[in-house]
Amino acid sequence: MSLNFCFIGAGNLATHLSKAFQNKGFIISQVYSRTEQSANKLAETLSTKYTTSVSEIDWNADIYFVAIKDSAFDEVLSKINFGNKLVVHCSGSLPLSAIEKYSDNFGVLYPLQTFSKKREIDFNEIPVFIEANSVKNEKQILEITCQISDSVSVINSDKRKALHISAVFACNFVNHFYTIAAEILKSKDIPFDVLKPLILETAKKVQEIKPEKAQTGPAIRFDKNIINEHLKELNSFSDYRQLYKSISKSIFEHYKK
Amino acid sequence: MSLNFCFIGAGNLATHLSKAFQNKGFIISQVYSRTEQSANKLAETLSTKYTTSVSEIDWNADIYFVAIKDSAFDEVLSKINFGNKLVVHCSGSLPLSAIEKYSDNFGVLYPLQTFSKKREIDFNEIPVFIEANSVKNEKQILEITCQISDSVSVINSDKRKALHISAVFACNFVNHFYTIAAEILKSKDIPFDVLKPLILETAKKVQEIKPEKAQTGPAIRFDKNIINEHLKELNSFSDYRQLYKSISKSIFEHYKK
Repeated sequence: MSLNFCFIGAGNLATHLSKAFQNKGFIISQVYSRTEQSANKLAETLSTKYTTSVSEIDWNADIYFVAIKDSAFDEVLSKINFGNKLVVHCSGSLPLSAIEKYSDNFGVLYPLQTFSKKREIDFNEIPVFIEANSVKNEKQILEITCQISDSVSVINSDKRKALHISAVFACNFVNHFYTIAAEILKSKDIPFDVLKPLILETAKKVQEIKPEKAQTGPAIRFDKNIINEHLKELNSFSDYRQLYKSISKSIFEHYKK
Repeated sequence: MSLNFCFIGAGNLATHLSKAFQNKGFIISQVYSRTEQSANKLAETLSTKYTTSVSEIDWNADIYFVAIKDSAFDEVLSKINFGNKLVVHCSGSLPLSAIEKYSDNFGVLYPLQTFSKKREIDFNEIPVFIEANSVKNEKQILEITCQISDSVSVINSDKRKALHISAVFACNFVNHFYTIAAEILKSKDIPFDVLKPLILETAKKVQEIKPEKAQTGPAIRFDKNIINEHLKELNSFSDYRQLYKSISKSIFEHYKK
């Protein structure tokens, strides 16, 4: 018999994860979100029911997945009675123990990827990191996760936090730099499109070469002329000017060693 | 009859550009580099001759391509007599005028890409930006460049500098953050491999979605708990801690607007 999952949260991660499970035959019996629109939209995608009221959360699900932002975690979970059902959170930063007061059976399922609702993604290729409070729960989470991803590892909370921080650098901060680049180009009426091949090649390069060996540009050569020219040019973007300075310094320090 | 090119410089850019021209039937008659090893290596790749002495630079080439680091520019070029041959520099940052004292015919050919000797790259897909001191020279540079790239634009020195700065953010700084991420993972014995799908997806996302709309992570949500947790965790990486702080702030400021 198929397992029944209830999703607490209906954001980007909840959307992709619940769809991946449903595609493998698991039943998503219900979606809860505090936001009517999100709950409704995900429930529609999954052809399932939804609620915005914690008191209406289904008692009969086999596993509860919690995919809400960390700052709303306790506020939402403290209102839900999970009995002793398996409760699994999906946060990179919260430790396993963050969930221990809500059930005797609990675990973590953390997919290392950036999710946007509009973009389809092959869940199979996403590295997923799991953890649980008992061998039995770990086995169950491992079994279901292996059905949606080809790369599943058991990892502790401390390592997961390091994973999350590294993802912030390699994804969130990187994307912000794409945004800054777009803004600089826009100020000169140049379309962002011209950067796309460079962005893709930069990411492809480190699939094969260690990033340390792939570094190019004026900072690694410590080309003072270029750096100073660039800083002068960035006078109209004072925040970015400061970032340019500190990152160039960081690159230089790194390669000086 | 095929045109004869002489390459001043034998680094990453010179290597990829000269190979792209040779593949299209242009003759690379000579390579000059101050470094014997680089000159020899590129000349071998191209099956052509090389020199490390400016006095031995071929007088008979039709076009001279200058692909050396900006800081060595004047030191090398001031020793070469180009007659009135067409001299083309490949720098993102140097203006067209940087070359005017060396010939009456001059221009710029700037490919917007990151080059490593070890990685093959399809030159056709690289956006190339050109500029010249006369309509005639512009036409000639345009004609030869269109044979190696599907995306060639004429752009002035001011705009090219903005392109270069944006490339520093979108490539050099991005790659440095891959390096930082690798270092953080290494401190917990986690292989860099786990980040590869995330890095690739982050770059692929902005091929379709504007980077501004693609932003995810704790900084855009201004999730203070996570940010503070991460800062605490980064205590052993004080430089990266500072970068984490200023970039999170920059993201928050950007989306507050």
